[in-house]
Amino acid sequence: MSFAPLHLKSNADRRLKQGHLWIYSNEINTEASPLSGFSVGQQVEVLSNGGKSLGLATMNPQGLICARLVSRQKKYPLDKSLLVHRIKQALSLRELAFSKPFYRLIYGDSDLLPGLVVDRFDRYLVVQISTAGMELLKQEIVEALQKVLRPEAILLRNDHSARKLENLEETVETIGDIPEAVEMEENGCSFLAPVAYGQKTGWFYDHRENRALLQRLSPGKRVLDVFSYVGGWGVQAAHAGASEVVCVDASESALDWVSENAAINGLQDKVSTIHGKAIDVLKQLIQAQERFDIVVLDPPAFIKKRKDKKSGEAAYRHINELGMRLLGKDGVLVSGSCSMHLEKDRLNDIVRASARHLERHCQILHQGGQGPDHPVHPAIPETDYLKAVFARVYLP
Amino acid sequence: MSFAPLHLKSNADRRLKQGHLWIYSNEINTEASPLSGFSVGQQVEVLSNGGKSLGLATMNPQGLICARLVSRQKKYPLDKSLLVHRIKQALSLRELAFSKPFYRLIYGDSDLLPGLVVDRFDRYLVVQISTAGMELLKQEIVEALQKVLRPEAILLRNDHSARKLENLEETVETIGDIPEAVEMEENGCSFLAPVAYGQKTGWFYDHRENRALLQRLSPGKRVLDVFSYVGGWGVQAAHAGASEVVCVDASESALDWVSENAAINGLQDKVSTIHGKAIDVLKQLIQAQERFDIVVLDPPAFIKKRKDKKSGEAAYRHINELGMRLLGKDGVLVSGSCSMHLEKDRLNDIVRASARHLERHCQILHQGGQGPDHPVHPAIPETDYLKAVFARVYLP
Repeated sequence: MSFAPLHLKSNADRRLKQGHLWIYSNEINTEASPLSGFSVGQQVEVLSNGGKSLGLATMNPQGLICARLVSRQKKYPLDKSLLVHRIKQALSLRELAFSKPFYRLIYGDSDLLPGLVVDRFDRYLVVQISTAGMELLKQEIVEALQKVLRPEAILLRNDHSARKLENLEETVETIGDIPEAVEMEENGCSFLAPVAYGQKTGWFYDHRENRALLQRLSPGKRVLDVFSYVGGWGVQAAHAGASEVVCVDASESALDWVSENAAINGLQDKVSTIHGKAIDVLKQLIQAQERFDIVVLDPPAFIKKRKDKKSGEAAYRHINELGMRLLGKDGVLVSGSCSMHLEKDRLNDIVRASARHLERHCQILHQGGQGPDHPVHPAIPETDYLKAVFARVYLP
Repeated sequence: MSFAPLHLKSNADRRLKQGHLWIYSNEINTEASPLSGFSVGQQVEVLSNGGKSLGLATMNPQGLICARLVSRQKKYPLDKSLLVHRIKQALSLRELAFSKPFYRLIYGDSDLLPGLVVDRFDRYLVVQISTAGMELLKQEIVEALQKVLRPEAILLRNDHSARKLENLEETVETIGDIPEAVEMEENGCSFLAPVAYGQKTGWFYDHRENRALLQRLSPGKRVLDVFSYVGGWGVQAAHAGASEVVCVDASESALDWVSENAAINGLQDKVSTIHGKAIDVLKQLIQAQERFDIVVLDPPAFIKKRKDKKSGEAAYRHINELGMRLLGKDGVLVSGSCSMHLEKDRLNDIVRASARHLERHCQILHQGGQGPDHPVHPAIPETDYLKAVFARVYLP
């Protein structure tokens, strides 16, 4: 097979050689290979300035990230066969790390499949495609998943806003029958994940290991779960023996799922919900002089773009201090962030500053990240986004 | 009580206000408070340039770190009473995180006791004192530990080289009777920790959580444990169901303890040892075309001082690449570092570069750190030193 050449400028191959997969538009020698000559999503052969083949990439000529390497050998283009191979490689990692079939099966770049995310709920798969290259291979992706996993149904939740960057429409498609919410299990606790209408794929597998640690700390504790979504943190705390759990979320339907998920585990008497904006509810709880042994903050990304860094950091600072003020003697704050733009050390420092402002000492017990089903690609810092700081806060 | 004043230069109080505990010699206003006026280890009242009391510190007038804050209120000097209070606070954290009495009980600055480390092996305590201020309080420390924990014996392993920095002699003392090696348990596996003659306090509790993850990955695997010391990693891998474990260490007595620890758990048929320098043994194993599913590298600090950064990084790079070459298909490298001077991202990059050099793709499953009994003080980066990168390495 032959592929149109994509000529890079000199030195533009360096990052690729280090393992990275992305090619920016300003790295392309557009005299030798004008962008107007490429169609959206097509596979091209990437050539260094010296003419050396670096492999195959899918193109998006209009994108800032103009091409993504999908194969380092031109004899293996990204087709159904390579997809099957990559899916099997990804599966073997998940089967190494987990004993039950509930996990992120494919995590984009880290599994060498840029633009593809697949979450597995046993016999059901939920897929997100975010690049033009992967969109063009949609049929092959479905077939490859069917070949490796024989799922009962595949839900394509291609209704996320990241698709706009690649000029892709927002759509939802289903292959086979899938219920509105699917049964799943995390850290020994049962849940219904609202795959059809919930956030993203319906469940956030990324915090699994951090929730396991929460379980370990929870016996006998009073726990506040802020930005609870469907209760991943809170219901697990109750499952592990928390004396009482309060879940806070701005979405009533998310809180309905919290109640449902508590009930599934026979924990309806331990888990209650408060509907409202996090900041408002935290202030009301402070006003009412409520105290908790553990406060979990798992907010949405406050820093979506680099330019929002300053205001976003202030938002993290604010929420962390409010959360800390609700801690009783010797309490533990679990401070999460899924903002790629917030560095790990910066979150530690936000927790430190909040504690100092309240004249408390804090000790960081754990600096958690993504679970092993969200492996980090060490050449692509963007794949390393999740943080969960566990800090004990006390009057010294 | 009144304390001699230690006057700081202007702005030298800033770091302390952020939560830090150290005062460097160049931050002291030596006109107002000449260093010659202080005795080694004495407690002083720290005053900002504006004359505001910042609390009490222990002095070491000859040290680069000249004083360490031990209390933020001058009415509470560091005495037996405050020691008891701080030990109880530290104990409450360990009892929150662990169900059995085996852990680092006191971790220096992070527990607001700069210069003091205490490891607990149930009824036995092993103490390390590394500052002149703590040395002066040795009797009070022993009494406070006795009061809170009623131990059978206390071993003062004050034979570590860090004491030289504070002009302290290297000594070993025992209060009560303590065996040469004490029984302990980590992640459900039994061990004898050679407290009397082993490295540091006899056991490295810091990697506990990382060894728990090793256990999770080990069933059915062939595991190589390099720099094994007394078998903390290797014996736990065997305990979790590894098919075979090989431990490598340069110390014959450490390897004797490996065999003993394997036998205690009935794992003597699964765990073997190779005596020799890590680099030499790794090369021999490569030569012999041996392959392992998991290779653990837990070397001593290759970067002890900042000036050794370059050579130390090269040493990490070398050992990581050798370890990676011993991995079979789809193997996992566990790459540890206890060098404070090696940044987390740098170790990730060393693993990345090693994999790329071998034309392998690698995925970082986990970036582990210290367990909760080594809490990080967020204002003191030096308290955050341990790393364990779990990377799957494969031919893409």
